[in-house]
Parts: sequence; structure tokens; C-alpha cells
Amino acid sequence: MAEAVPVVVGIDFGTLSGRAVVVRASDGTELGHAVHEYRHGVLTTALPDGTKLPPDWALQVPSDYVDVLRHAVPEAIAAAGVDPADVVGVGTDFTACTMVPTLSDGTPLNEVDGLAGTPHAYVKLWKHHAAQGQADRINRLAHERGEPWIDRYGGLISSEWEFAKALQLLEEDPDTYARVERWVEAADWIIWQLTGEYVRNACSAGYKGILQDGAYPSPKFLGALHPGFADFVTAKLEAPIGRLGDAAGRLSARAAAWTGLPEGIAVAVGNVDAHVTAAACNALRPGQLVAITGTSTCHVVNGDAPLPVPGMCGVVDGGIVAGKWGYEAGQSGVGDIFGHFVERFVPAEYSDAAAAAGVSVHEYLTGLASAQRPGQHGLIALDWQSGNRSVLVDHELSGVLVGETLATRPEDVYRALVEATAFGTRTIIETFRAADVPITELIVAGGLVKNPMIMQIYSDVTRMPLSVIDSEQGPALGSAIHAAVAAGLYVDVPAAAARMGRAKPAVYQPDEAAAAVYDALFAEYTTLHDYFGRGANDVMHRLRRIARTGAPL
Amino acid sequence: MAEAVPVVVGIDFGTLSGRAVVVRASDGTELGHAVHEYRHGVLTTALPDGTKLPPDWALQVPSDYVDVLRHAVPEAIAAAGVDPADVVGVGTDFTACTMVPTLSDGTPLNEVDGLAGTPHAYVKLWKHHAAQGQADRINRLAHERGEPWIDRYGGLISSEWEFAKALQLLEEDPDTYARVERWVEAADWIIWQLTGEYVRNACSAGYKGILQDGAYPSPKFLGALHPGFADFVTAKLEAPIGRLGDAAGRLSARAAAWTGLPEGIAVAVGNVDAHVTAAACNALRPGQLVAITGTSTCHVVNGDAPLPVPGMCGVVDGGIVAGKWGYEAGQSGVGDIFGHFVERFVPAEYSDAAAAAGVSVHEYLTGLASAQRPGQHGLIALDWQSGNRSVLVDHELSGVLVGETLATRPEDVYRALVEATAFGTRTIIETFRAADVPITELIVAGGLVKNPMIMQIYSDVTRMPLSVIDSEQGPALGSAIHAAVAAGLYVDVPAAAARMGRAKPAVYQPDEAAAAVYDALFAEYTTLHDYFGRGANDVMHRLRRIARTGAPL
Repeated sequence: MAEAVPVVVGIDFGTLSGRAVVVRASDGTELGHAVHEYRHGVLTTALPDGTKLPPDWALQVPSDYVDVLRHAVPEAIAAAGVDPADVVGVGTDFTACTMVPTLSDGTPLNEVDGLAGTPHAYVKLWKHHAAQGQADRINRLAHERGEPWIDRYGGLISSEWEFAKALQLLEEDPDTYARVERWVEAADWIIWQLTGEYVRNACSAGYKGILQDGAYPSPKFLGALHPGFADFVTAKLEAPIGRLGDAAGRLSARAAAWTGLPEGIAVAVGNVDAHVTAAACNALRPGQLVAITGTSTCHVVNGDAPLPVPGMCGVVDGGIVAGKWGYEAGQSGVGDIFGHFVERFVPAEYSDAAAAAGVSVHEYLTGLASAQRPGQHGLIALDWQSGNRSVLVDHELSGVLVGETLATRPEDVYRALVEATAFGTRTIIETFRAADVPITELIVAGGLVKNPMIMQIYSDVTRMPLSVIDSEQGPALGSAIHAAVAAGLYVDVPAAAARMGRAKPAVYQPDEAAAAVYDALFAEYTTLHDYFGRGANDVMHRLRRIARTGAPL
Repeated sequence: MAEAVPVVVGIDFGTLSGRAVVVRASDGTELGHAVHEYRHGVLTTALPDGTKLPPDWALQVPSDYVDVLRHAVPEAIAAAGVDPADVVGVGTDFTACTMVPTLSDGTPLNEVDGLAGTPHAYVKLWKHHAAQGQADRINRLAHERGEPWIDRYGGLISSEWEFAKALQLLEEDPDTYARVERWVEAADWIIWQLTGEYVRNACSAGYKGILQDGAYPSPKFLGALHPGFADFVTAKLEAPIGRLGDAAGRLSARAAAWTGLPEGIAVAVGNVDAHVTAAACNALRPGQLVAITGTSTCHVVNGDAPLPVPGMCGVVDGGIVAGKWGYEAGQSGVGDIFGHFVERFVPAEYSDAAAAAGVSVHEYLTGLASAQRPGQHGLIALDWQSGNRSVLVDHELSGVLVGETLATRPEDVYRALVEATAFGTRTIIETFRAADVPITELIVAGGLVKNPMIMQIYSDVTRMPLSVIDSEQGPALGSAIHAAVAAGLYVDVPAAAARMGRAKPAVYQPDEAAAAVYDALFAEYTTLHDYFGRGANDVMHRLRRIARTGAPL
């Protein structure tokens, strides 16, 4: 049996599942964990009742999140073998920007009578990409009016964020918009479910909610986008802001019944998956860039001041940790791109050989690709199959592959795609540095750390030693760290992270010969990046328009 | 039993096999045919004795060609049910430029004692691509010296042709070069075997042998390339030129024994597969562009005068039919590109579904891709996976795919590749027209005519009605037409083609709505074609160099 010491629970709400981890508060030891898959996953083609969805939509069902509380938490406690009475705090993190339209009591609109067949009544998941037109107009107007906040977001607001998604809702379905009483980050909605309190976390509010220097975009600005949007902030968005690591409230009786945890324990302010991971890596000092890799990659780094960085997701006061300016950047497709290739473009010869060898197709391709020297495949790719989040901030961009011959094999393309995402990371690092935000260390967390070939390529391409998170439970551990702070066990998040978080330093070192070849290939990447991404040849946007409309321009 | 009427035999020597067809001379009715696969196929990695070959080599074994005479001809006669005594003529066609190094009696060098293990003693097949350096030097020197013939070849000689291949032989293996007494087109070597006479056909000599206005490149020019090359024409290349459709000689007793045909019948002057197909289609009038589709595509069209067309393969007096100037252009990869995609990049889900449906993967993908409207997949590709033969004449170019998203499926890429080859054809047509060579009709022969989706896309993209050859035996029928002329049954090839050749007119009509979308996509193709192909971004050459050398530039 585990010792009766203070224990905390971190819960990470991902794209397809939620994961709970039980952690010893004194040293971060992970005592047990459990995962619960969302029953409805991601809705991209139809609602549960069969109602069809347009292209680029991505919805979720809020009750799936509650099911994580009901299943993953008690299972993790059981797996840890601890007494639930020893749990003193709960912390959570969520995908972002993922938005729940609710009534004033937090009831999700899709659960309201008569709205189960209404697409706009559902959660708009972070990767819902159908609000690009709205984002474009927000950006144009912000620059026209010289809005002070736009520079905090690298000059561009994403279509994934709160305002673009809300404006899409208003313009496409004004009746449902009128029914929305609160427009809630899922990160905060889950805290509302746990505590009965609606507190907006400083991270989501700052990055995705355009809250800068204590103010949201003005009614005048919003009204210029759409007359019905002028009162959006006051009518549907505003709520008290909670500092990261503070307690948002106490575990309610209802949530205690769901989770099996003691009623009244501390529940930390909501948070975002990438941002809590910096704490899990104990990498909260300025210059420590944490890359949280997975289907997409998020980059977070603290700085001492808010500098304008072109095409960054944002810089937010206390956005990663209170007292620092948190910078965020991202790559909208990474593991997704490899996964798509493996699912759709790898022949039976390969999948059969992988099965015969008892490895995944990813592992099989990695084995073949590892045998190559850099540049041997003769390919160069752009990593925009899921658009570009930084530094171009354009979800209508798409992939490019140059150099294919009749000798090109699947492992060649696989390696080229990996390299393309590494070039994407280098582009972000160079953009930070060019804006005088120092990047001194690269710490990697998330799914890609399991693949040594990918890690070595990232080290060679960035010419940086790579540190690697020393936990299988990255975000959930980060949430547990915030739970420990919320429960009063540590004075602040850095103090807790220093005891509970961990990374293995400089696990991968750049190889000079490989790095020299990659310098040349990165120059090619940059040329293509700028040619296709900065307007010299706007073919990607034209292809999208033709694909959508079926008509020439 | 067939009526005792004059019968002719056409023999088509392809890349992997030879095919004989027995044809009634009065109306072109095909009475029977047979195919014989080459025992050694294409040697790309090693000689029959195991001697290793460098990259980009492609060799053949001449005895394989003789085996076609010994097997396919008697089998075709048997299949036709005709009396061999009724056969009055034989015609042949061959891949080009395919070169046999021989002794002065026609003995192939690889059959000479002690040379069976010498790579340069073998036939260099058309797609032997290891003489690019030599071709580059020939082109540079020709422009420096202002050689009059270079404009007849669109300003560029191919590495596939007679002089580049011979110069490679001289420079890489001077001992074997010294043993070469005749440097013979396979198209003429097979006639030598049939008749005992060495006659060079006007088609090969003009296109691949740089014979223009009665002269080859001068000894001075050749000596400037390499001192030992100055006497190449007089020492190894020259031979009497035979007009297409004339008799090169009479069937020898030895060849009569091989084939079972009557000794002494007419044997037509050798010819090239693509060029005889124009006769098979009865498409010999100026303006009638015949596209012979397959792994690659060759385009031939007659004109009244020799106009310079940038990047064409060549214009030759009597190169397709005596009395006209024959223009040739080509796409080095077409069916090859689709085949490579199907072999390497289509998942088990698709190959299993195709097998379950009892169709090929090509047919399965075609079924899915046919359901799309033009532009729906959002992709644009360049068709250079096997380099570009016209109009850029650069085998170091490579493929491009732009527009991939996480929603892209194999049928999308398949369709985009088909469209890319159609855009390649349109580029060739527009280049002809811009040079004042009229193109008034497009007639398609070869493997792609079996795929209605591909044909419709070609019609939509080119905005031209498509006529389709009305024979399964394209080149072999064309050779039989030449045999009938050589036997004196017709006054000339056009007269014979009018009776024996045939195409179904305007089988596919361009759809205006589709054509309008393709106009827009062709504009995108052209932008990318010029960007990657004309030096604005020379990334493809740099990628090749990095791939070969492993070093940055």
C-alpha cells in the first residue's frame, strides 16, 4: 500500500480521450492512471442523430467530458491503490480553443430540448476550421482600426479562436446564437462542472479570448464586424478571471459523487494542455521552449516582456505561469500528417511486413527511414496538410511534396514529412529569435518523444540539444502540479514544478554532418514556405476555392 | 478458312515483349496475333552473368529480339489461320532510340567472345539515362558553335539518343568502343537480321541520329567533344538511308526459317513504334496529332515545313511519312507515374476492395475518381516523376504535388496525376501552336484509350474532341501497313493507311463546364511548370545533387 501522503489528481482532456493521473504531491511520483475514450470522438461528418455537417467542421459532445470524470478518475485512484481520502486537490487541462455554448447555468445547448439536431449547438473543437472567413475579417478590421491587441497575436487571430467561432455561429445560425447565454471554453466548463463556479482561466482568456491589459475587443469593434455582435463580450463571454494555479473553487457534492473524491477539496483554475506541460517538464524559465508534440505541436516559452513576434499565437501576461509573459506558437499538423500518410498511402506490402514483424506501420517505416542519410531521398515537403498555425497563421494552406521520382518509396515520403515538421519547428524558433525572444533550450514532450529517429532529426535540423520530458503523463502531471498549488501545498507553480516536474537534459545532440545537409534543405524549405505561404503564388487558396465552389475563379 | 488474299505481317518490338499481327492487306482486318516476352526483359541492375550495373542504366539482349521472330510470327500465323504462302510482306517497328553495338556483319558485341560480361557491349535501351552529362555537353557545344541542326530538335538533344549514348561508351569504355564496328538502331538491326541488308531508316536517322539536310554533325564538332569521336560518323554510323514504306530488302532464307514465312518477300524499311502508329490511325495529314500513350507518351504530327518548336524532340523530313516534315514530342512519364503510385502508395484497404470487386487497383481508383467533379480534390501536380521530355527536355526534373490536406485520399492523388499528364499534353499542343505548327485533331492510341475517365479528362483539358484508334494492335498494324506498301500493294503509306488504318472519330467531346475549371487549373500548372522547370527555383536539381552526393552544396 502507498504511504498516506497528500495526493493530487491531474486530468488531461485530449482530442479523443481523457486521462486521469494520481500523483504524490511531495515529489511528483505517478502512482496510477486511467484513460477513458470519448464515446462520440470528433464529429466531422454528422451529428449523432445523422444530421450532416459541412466540410472543415469538428464538433464534440460535452457529456463525453463528464464521462471522463465518472470513469477515468475512479479507475486511476484504484490503479494507484490510494485511499481517495488522501486526495487533496484536482487540476485539469483541456484542448484549446474548444468552445461550449451553454445556458446561464452551464447546460450545454445540445442538451436543451429541440437542439440535439442543431450543429451550432455542439462544442466547436479546437480543430473546427470553418470560421476562416470570420477570422480574416477580424484581422482585417483590427489592422484597419489599429487595434492595440492585434500585435500581441503576431498580427493575426486564428479561425480556431473564441471570437471567430462565435461570429460564425451568429452569422450562420442567428437563432441558435440567440439561445447561447454563455460562450465557454471547455477548459472552464469542466471546472464549472466540478465546482459549480464559472471562472475563466487566464491562459485561455488571454490567448484565445483576446483579453489583453484587462480588456476584450470593444463593442465598437465587434459591432463593426456585425451589428448583432457588439454586445457579445458583456452578454455571453465575460466572467471572473482565475490565475493559473489558484483554486477556482471546491469539489461539489455532485462531482464528488462522479469521481469518488472527497467533497470540498481544491479544484485548480482550468488550464490548457500545452501550457501545463511546461510545468510537468519543470521548464518555466525564460528561454526554455517546450514543444508539446502530438497530432499537432504547441510551443510555449516564458519571457520577461511582451515583444511582438510575427505570426505567433500570442503573448499573454501570466498565460503559462503567473508573473511571466507566456509566448505560444504552434504547428497545426504534425503527428496527424504522419498518421494520415500511414493510413492512406502505405501499401499492403508494408502493412503486411509490419504486422509480420510485430511492429506498427509507423515503427516499420521508421526502421527503413532511419537507414537513410539526410537528403538521400531527394524530397522536400511543406508541413501544411492541416494548415499553418505559426508563423503564417493560415488554415487554408496545404501540403507540398517536391522531388518525387519513380524510385520514391513510402519510407522516403515518411522521412520527408518528419523533416518538414522539424523545419516548421526551426522556422518558429528563428522567428522568436529574430524578435529578440531568446530560445536557449528545447524540451520535447508528447507523443513524438517515443521515436528516436524523429528526435534526432529535430535536433539535427534545429542544431539544438534536445531535452525530453521524463513522464508518460505530460499534461496530466502538469495539471496535478497545478492541483498541488491550488491545494496550498506549494507557494507557486514554479516551486511545485521544481519538485514534481522533470525532463531528461540533452538526450539528443545535433550531428554536425547531418546538420550541414539540413541547413541546405532548410533553405529550400524556406524558399518554398515563402513562395507558397506569403503570396508569391497563392495557388493553395485558389485550389481551395475551386474545390469548394466547383467553379473557376 | 480465310480467303486466299494478300496478307502482311507487322511486328512491334516493345520494351518488354514483341508482338506480331497478321493483317489482310486489302482492308487492314486483323486476322490473328501473338506476343513473345523478352527472356531478359530490361537489365537495370546486373548483366545476365551477374555483373552489376550503375544507376540509370537500362540494357537489353539482342537475341531476345530474334526470339520474337522465331516464336511470335509463326504463332500469329497459326492464330490467324492463314497459309504462310499468302504472306507478301513484313514490316517492323521498334522502341527508339535503342542502340546495338555490332561487328561489321551485324553480330552484337555482347555475343563476341570475351564480351558477355561487358556492360557497354549490350544494347542501350531507349530509357538508358546514364548519358546526361554527354548530352549536356553536346547541347552546349552545338549552341556555342551555332550548329544549324540544333534548332530542328527544339534546341536540345536528348541523353537517350545515338550520339550521347555513343559518347558515353567511348568515354567510359574506350576498349569496347574500339571494338564497335557499327552503331546500329535496333529498328535497323532487326531488318538486317531479316534481310541481310543494313539500311538505316529515315525516321531514326533523322530524329535520334541528327541527320538533317543530308548531313550528320561534322567531324570538327565531334572532335571538339572528344578527339576520338571525330570519325564516329564515317567509322561506325553511316549507312544507306531507307525511305519509310520502301522495301529494305527481301526475307532471307535464314529469316524465312525462323519465321516460317516465304523466302524473298518484301521487308519494309525499319521504323519506330510511335511513328507507324500514325499510319495505323490513318492520321497522316498535317494537323492530326497522334498521342501514343503508355508508360510514356509520344506525340507525332506532320507539317508542311520545318519550323523551330522549343523543346520538341525533333522535326525530320520524311520522319513519319515521305514528303512531309514529321514533328515528334513526348512525355517521359505517363502510365509509369500512375503505375508507380498504384504500386507504392495505395493502401491495403483499396487493394483488398479492388480484389474483392474483381477489378484492378487502377480500375478501382478510376471508379472512385470518376465520381469527382473537376477540381474537387483541391490538388495540382506536375508530371515529372520520370523527368520532362518536352518542352523542357530535362530528365533531372521531378514530381510535385500541391494541395494535400488530411482529407486527401488515394483516388484524389490518382486523379490529380492523370490531370497532370493531361496538362503536360496541353503544354505540348500549345507549344506547337505558338510555333505556328497547326494542331487540329487529337487522336489517341496506346494503353490509356482503355480508360474512359482518362480520355474524358484529356478532352476536357485540351478542349479538343478525342479520336481513338480502332485497333488493339496499334504499332503492329502500322508496321503491317508499311509492309503492304513495301510489297507494292499500295502506291504510298497514306494510300495504304486510308484503307488499312482506322480511328473512331471524336469519341470524347470536351465538356464546357469541366473545361472551364481545367483552364483555371492549367494556369496553375503552367505557373508551377515554369517556376520549377525554367530556373526560378532550381530546387529539383539541387535535391538530386544532395541525394547523389550526400553533401550540401
